[in-house]
Amino acid sequence: MLKVERLLVNYKTLEEFKKFREYGIQELSMLEDLQSNIIENDSDSPFYGIYYGDKLVARMSLYRVNKRFDQYFSPQQDFLELWKLEVLPNYQGKGYGRALVDYAKSFNLPIKTNPRVKSGDFWSKMNFEQVKYEMERDKGENPLVWYPSGVSEQ
Amino acid sequence: MLKVERLLVNYKTLEEFKKFREYGIQELSMLEDLQSNIIENDSDSPFYGIYYGDKLVARMSLYRVNKRFDQYFSPQQDFLELWKLEVLPNYQGKGYGRALVDYAKSFNLPIKTNPRVKSGDFWSKMNFEQVKYEMERDKGENPLVWYPSGVSEQ
Repeated sequence: MLKVERLLVNYKTLEEFKKFREYGIQELSMLEDLQSNIIENDSDSPFYGIYYGDKLVARMSLYRVNKRFDQYFSPQQDFLELWKLEVLPNYQGKGYGRALVDYAKSFNLPIKTNPRVKSGDFWSKMNFEQVKYEMERDKGENPLVWYPSGVSEQ
Repeated sequence: MLKVERLLVNYKTLEEFKKFREYGIQELSMLEDLQSNIIENDSDSPFYGIYYGDKLVARMSLYRVNKRFDQYFSPQQDFLELWKLEVLPNYQGKGYGRALVDYAKSFNLPIKTNPRVKSGDFWSKMNFEQVKYEMERDKGENPLVWYPSGVSEQ
């Protein structure tokens, strides 16, 4: 059984994040906020991850979006935006990705993600579905969504 | 002088789009709409491109976002969202990318894009700047913006 943990903002975690391909302005901003004491050491981050020993090998970011901004689900409701789901190369194919997605599903809220185009097979195994593309809403995204019971496309 | 053209939705264009890495649900949706006559052959697409002979070698998508949705610019105003800027591998380093970006700038509206992390050098040469990251707004994005004269960060 893989243990999913909420990741804390500290120098060790931020250093481990550099091993992930999707390292970007979000992580840099967390580092700056830590360095300038805008956020406390070991405060909660929006990231969840799985450790192998003391090495972070998989992660994702989750954010609960208020229903006012829901353009995907019916009835309109709070949902989770999931991004930067990533498993380090030597640890792929071992269920880490699925464990993270299952964790996200355990909140029983609809989930929206915008994965890289090449990861379609994985998301389909996770029961995520394509939405009908709408340019005004989706622009350059390839949104995939997961509907808990009782929820449908908007 | 490279000529930037608005691309028309037809089977030839949609076939050429398949050569670009960032082919996704947007293009598939255009194909379906064409096949089911929801859109007319040769209608305007949100894509602009450059041909070398009769081969499409560079493209981008542009969409004018209404000021009501502007969370990036001050004063709040209509802006252009730019995505899927891409030059085919054998045609890179020849000014095609710059020609497309210059075309986008010629509308004299602020521009926002969310490029792949690795293309930072190009965008910095194009005078695009990083915004201050805000999770509620930017989620997994790495937004870069271009400010025309008189426009600043929100």
